[in-house]
Order: sequence, then structure tokens, then C-alpha cells
Amino acid sequence: MDTPEIIRKKRDGLVLTRAEVFDFVERYTRGEIPDYQASALLMAIYFRGMDRRETADLTEAMLRSGRVLDFSALPLAKVDKHSTGGVGDKTSLIIAPAAAESGVLVPMISGRGLGHTGGTLDKLEAIPGFSPRLSSREFHRVLESCGLALGAATEEFAPADRKLYALRDVTATVESIPLITASIMSKKLAEGIDGLVLDVKTGSGAFMQDLENARALATSLVNTGTAHGKRVHALITGMSQPLGNAVGNALEVIESAETLKGRGPTDLVELCRELTAHMLVLGNVTDSLDEARARYDSAISSGQALDRFARVVAEQGGNPRALEDYSLLPQARFEDSVAAAEDGFIAGLEARVMGAASMILGAGRDRADATVDPAVGLVFEKKVGDPVRAGERVCILYSNDRSRVPMALGMIREAIGISPTPVSPPPLVLERVLECL
Amino acid sequence: MDTPEIIRKKRDGLVLTRAEVFDFVERYTRGEIPDYQASALLMAIYFRGMDRRETADLTEAMLRSGRVLDFSALPLAKVDKHSTGGVGDKTSLIIAPAAAESGVLVPMISGRGLGHTGGTLDKLEAIPGFSPRLSSREFHRVLESCGLALGAATEEFAPADRKLYALRDVTATVESIPLITASIMSKKLAEGIDGLVLDVKTGSGAFMQDLENARALATSLVNTGTAHGKRVHALITGMSQPLGNAVGNALEVIESAETLKGRGPTDLVELCRELTAHMLVLGNVTDSLDEARARYDSAISSGQALDRFARVVAEQGGNPRALEDYSLLPQARFEDSVAAAEDGFIAGLEARVMGAASMILGAGRDRADATVDPAVGLVFEKKVGDPVRAGERVCILYSNDRSRVPMALGMIREAIGISPTPVSPPPLVLERVLECL
Repeated sequence: MDTPEIIRKKRDGLVLTRAEVFDFVERYTRGEIPDYQASALLMAIYFRGMDRRETADLTEAMLRSGRVLDFSALPLAKVDKHSTGGVGDKTSLIIAPAAAESGVLVPMISGRGLGHTGGTLDKLEAIPGFSPRLSSREFHRVLESCGLALGAATEEFAPADRKLYALRDVTATVESIPLITASIMSKKLAEGIDGLVLDVKTGSGAFMQDLENARALATSLVNTGTAHGKRVHALITGMSQPLGNAVGNALEVIESAETLKGRGPTDLVELCRELTAHMLVLGNVTDSLDEARARYDSAISSGQALDRFARVVAEQGGNPRALEDYSLLPQARFEDSVAAAEDGFIAGLEARVMGAASMILGAGRDRADATVDPAVGLVFEKKVGDPVRAGERVCILYSNDRSRVPMALGMIREAIGISPTPVSPPPLVLERVLECL
Repeated sequence: MDTPEIIRKKRDGLVLTRAEVFDFVERYTRGEIPDYQASALLMAIYFRGMDRRETADLTEAMLRSGRVLDFSALPLAKVDKHSTGGVGDKTSLIIAPAAAESGVLVPMISGRGLGHTGGTLDKLEAIPGFSPRLSSREFHRVLESCGLALGAATEEFAPADRKLYALRDVTATVESIPLITASIMSKKLAEGIDGLVLDVKTGSGAFMQDLENARALATSLVNTGTAHGKRVHALITGMSQPLGNAVGNALEVIESAETLKGRGPTDLVELCRELTAHMLVLGNVTDSLDEARARYDSAISSGQALDRFARVVAEQGGNPRALEDYSLLPQARFEDSVAAAEDGFIAGLEARVMGAASMILGAGRDRADATVDPAVGLVFEKKVGDPVRAGERVCILYSNDRSRVPMALGMIREAIGISPTPVSPPPLVLERVLECL
């Protein structure tokens, strides 16, 4: 096919045929279409969008560029959860064992964090010895024995996405709903799942800052999953303040272990319960969300979800004792704190800034090839809505490099809002976009 | 500067600063910005446009990427004409000597044809021995001695345009008014001119097929010239049928010589007179268009414009006797003709199809590196509005490769419209966009 003609069609707002979409992705992945034509097409897609069928075709073409796992031989439903990225979002570490304990298989493949949001892989690797680098045989074995497996996204899954994402990153074409949809769904569908729960974040700390865009992305993700015969639910959830109290890899492992022990912070517990409940509904464990929520609660209160997490950690080379004795996790050398400047109620803990401050301390990456310090990060002792007195501690900073502390301290101080009048905690689950069967 | 940030700004509809525009063009020309970022920016410009100042800055940045001629030492005003490209448009060969004869200097640098429209350089090179490849010293000398010089666009003028145009061609980003404006004006301003008349074609055989786009392009060209302190007029002229009777390089040289001898076809004569008149007004020869038209007529009727053209042809190595003895020009071996299928009036001679038929005979290029056959082409014996009888000859085809004739014949037959009722010849000059001082 004539590449400029495909670009022109999209540029002029026409709908690409399935053959055109596949031709483009296949030839681009083989290196037969140069980057300069791909980026022109990406920018045309940015402006013109793609309809439901085009988006599903793009996803499928990207999915088929690599290998697709197959767990159809395993009897239970395979269900995963994916988040569009937030600050302090450690739900995967809690949900995966809780859902597995409640009767689905969770073949979870995660990536690393970039920018102000953390990645599940970085958090897991804070556990001494833990490795997400499993061969597909090992992944299959861990999944079968533990009910969950926690792998790393590698080049063999959706290589077209890897190549296109690198190009989008340097050509200002990241923020396009069909392109984001195809990128997420091509990698998730490669896991060989039957169902998927999506946590689409909105608010200042999210990629999709306003609700309207979050809703459009959620709908596109659900439609694309449905087009591929998968059951998909999307929850649109608030990300205006960090989720839970901890931000930073080892700190989030501790908070996850505490949550699995039934001692998690309210907002984190609520979100984990909701997401797990939807996974159980999609996995046909029950068709009642309320019953599914009760199953989550019982997986936690029985201690079975924690046991299961300890088992998968051990299976993947990690030391499960670190989930009991937190001193086995990486420790930061320095501790500083930010206190409230006045009496009142916490009105805001600007998530984007808190994520950026944590990144400055070394907990996150500003470049894909940067390394993270697993020990550093933030712990909030107050969340939005909490009353506070002048001088009372709001946030603790854990650091290893004192030179980075003053900047982080300044940012955090600026990002704490205090109101003289009472403030309600922000709602967590804003909307639910359920599958269209 | 951060290249993705420049792309993002334009993508989001913001106005680029002068520094950003220059930074982009300079680094792209030096090879420091890869094609894939340039094409993403070009597509964003396609969608978002550029305002007057951005377009002027883009033009200047491209202009400054190469050398700029300087004829300020020569006393008369330097004025050129540029056409956006049409079928049978040989006005340059007539206008340049007529304007020079009437008191301005014409430093004309032309390109080759591509697609269904012809290029001035291809027509001039049909004259035996003629060479447009002049050093800048030779160009200066010919301009001084003849009042006009007919050069070829080379890599030294606006190299940024050459590189960007090649990229636009393969990324579906050609049809953008600010990009077209900067491409045309950066090359024309490199000629060191004081004034410029633009012939912006509209109609089926033109690049800008509808009047609204032609008007937008004409306005953009005039504004950009004005921003650079040049006097610019644009005429929007019809290109629904070929201009004059001849299409094809040697055939157009003959028609040009005939027009310089006062025997040109009505539409061609009218357009040459109008364009020349505007050149004389811009060159301050007179401020009256009517007086300027009279000067054109007298340059023709006196034979001085023809003499001047013969002189410049001789100065540039060509045989001026070919302008008298047309048998010295390349001759086609075969002659075919298309006759009217019925009685009536010629209602249409679809310019785009006629240009394409002429290209099939070998008169034009489908690729930039193709060669042209100077002898072949079409001569129309009827134009729109002429009465015609069934069986009467409408078009003669001159060819050297008989295998190409049947397809060209079929296309021409289809492209001739005949009406049973009288038809008016289409208007030639549709609108004038004059400088905004």
C-alpha cells in the first residue's frame, strides 16, 4: 500500500480499513515504514482520532506483532487489573493475591514507573531477592501454583507498541485516546486473559487530568476489550492526592503488607476492595458486587491473601520474611518532616507535586534508563479532610542524599493546602464504565 | 530548545515564538532534528496553521538557510513573477522580456515541472543550447545586459525548503497554506527582488482547486512579502482549461514566440498583459495599471520584447534563430488528433486531465528524477466557448512513442465537454489581492 495515501486518508478524517491499519503496523514493525511517516500518521491520528473498529484493529495489529500467552488449559478464569498510573498506587500488590485467593487466576505483567507515577515492578523489586523476570514456563508454573504470577513486560509482547511508544514520546503524540487504548490493550491482551479491570485515574496527579477525557479513555478501553471478546470493566477513580499514605517503593511494600494484614489506610482499602470485586464479577466467581466485596474482605481478614502474596514472593526468589520484618527491606538513612503551618483541615495534597518530590528524592525515574532508590519516599500522616494543628507533622521524607532534601521539602510545603473550615475527603470511585455486551 | 515541546505547542494550537521557529529550521537543516520530529511538527502545522508572524518567521528562517542574491547595485527595481503552476502556463517566457523592456529588472529563478503542470525550466531547455545553469556572476551579468536573467533553482537557495519539501511530499503535509507560503516565498525572496507578482491558479487544473483556498494562499503570500518589506500583488486566475493552445515544452516555446510577435491566443495575451502590468506598478514604472498595460502592448507591438528574449536566449547559450525557424526546435514524429463527437460549443477542456495526458505522452514528470521529451504535447484548436461541428478537430497530439497515444487519446476525449447551447469563455482574472501597506 501507498504509505502517504494512508496518512492522507487519516489526515482528511476518513476511516482506515482493517487492511490499512494492519499493513501500517506490520511494515512499521519490520522497519519498512520510516519513523518520519509513522510520526506524521500518529499526529494525524492525534487530531482525527480513530473510531471503535479502527482502534480495535490497531490494538489487534499491535498485539499480533508479538507473542500471546495462552492459559486456556488452566480451569479458572484469568483476570487482571491495570491502572493508568497514579501516585502511591500500590493496589496491584494487594489485589492480585486477594483476587487469586477469591477464585480467579491473575497473570499480571507490569512495567516500570516513569515520571511522577510509580511502577508495580519497581515496588516489587524493593523486596530483597524478588525477580519478575520469569520465562514463560516459569510464569505458567507460578500462576498455576500460586494463582497469580507477577512478571515483567518484555520485548516479546507487542513489540510494535514498544517501537511506537518510543516514537510517540519524542513527537508529542502520547495524549491520544485511540493510541493510548491500543498501547494498553495490546499488552494486556497478550497476557491471555478473559477479563480485565481498568483503573482510569483522573485529577491533578493523573495522566488524564479531567473527568471528560478519563471517561472517553475508559469507554475506549472497554469497547476495545469487548471487540476482542474479553470482559472489561473500567473504574474512573480520583487521583488528586496520593493513594494511601506511602509513596516510594519499600515504603509502599510495607503499606501493602499492612493492608494485607487488615491495617491499610481507608482510601487504599476501599479502592482495593472495589477493584478486586470487579475482577471477581468478570471472572464469574459471583455476579453480585456486594458478595464479591465480602470475598475480598474475607481473603484479607483470614490472612489468606497475605499468605498467598508471601508464597508468590518466595516462588519468585524474594524473601517473604520481609513482609513481617520490615527492617529486611531497604532503609533510608535520613528522615525529615513537613509540619502544618497553621490550624485547620487538610484541603489538598497535590498528587502531581508529591509524586515529583518523591522522584527528586530518588524514588522514581525522569528517564527510562535511570535507576531508582528503593528506600526513599514520603509517608503522609494526614490526608485530605483530616484536622490538623499548626506544627503537627503532615509528611515524613525518607532520603539517602541530603542534597536533594531542601527542594523536595519546599515542593511538599507548597503542595499542602490547609483550610480553616472542615473539608470532606475526595470521592474515590467517580464512575464505572461496564462492558457493553 | 526541547523539540517535543515545540511540537506540543503547535499541536495544542499555540503560536510559536520567532526563536522557536528559527531554532527548528536551523537545527533541522543541520541534521540535528530528525525527520520524525520534523514530520510530526509539519502535520501539527497542517492542522493548526500558523499566523502571519509565524509564517513570515518560517519564511525568513528558510530564506536564511541559504544564500540571498543582492542586486542593490543595479539602479532599476527588481521584480519577478511566480505562478503556483498550471497547464500550458508559459507566461514567464513572455512576461520576463516584456517587463524588462518596460523598465524593470527581472531576476527570474525557476524550477522544473512535476505532475500534471509544466515547469518554466523545462520549456526554456527545449530551445537548443539554452542553459539556465548560471554562476551568480554570470546571472548578474546577464541581468545587467539584458534586463532579465533566467536561472535554475539550485541547492544554494533555501536548502531548508528543499529538505522540508522532500519530507512533506512523503508525509501528506504538502497542502498547508503556511508551509506552501514559506516554500514559495523563501525561494523568491532569495532572488534579491523588490517586488513580486503572484499568479495563484484556481480550478480543476490548479493545486488550489477552490477559490476560497486560493484566496487564503494569495493573502498569505502577500502578507509574507509585505512582512519582509517587499511589494507583492497576487492575481487569482482560472485554471479550468489549459492556458493558451499549446501544452508541451517546444510547443509552448513556439506559442511564446508567437505571442511575443503579437499573434498569441486571447487568454494567454490577456494574462501576460495583466501580470506584466502589475510588475510595472510594483517596480514604480507607473502607478496606473492602464498605462502599464499600454506599455506591455507597446513592448510587444514594437518587437522589442521579442528582441530582448532572443538576446537573453543567446546570452545563455541558446540558438535565438529557433524563435524564428521553429523547425530548429525538437520535432515530434507522430501526429494524432481528437475530433468533436457532436455539434455544439466547447463547454470544458478539463485542465488536470489534459495535463495528465500530456505527461503520459512524455512532456512532464511523474517523478522528480524522470526526464521529459521536449517535442511532445498537445495543441488545442478550440477553447471553451468556441463553436464546433461534429468531426472538427479539437486537439492535436504530438508524440514520439506510439504506445502511449491510445491512453492519452482516450483521456482527452473524455475531458472534452460539448454543450448544445452557447457557452461563455471562463473568466481569467478572478480576484486581485494587493499589498497591504
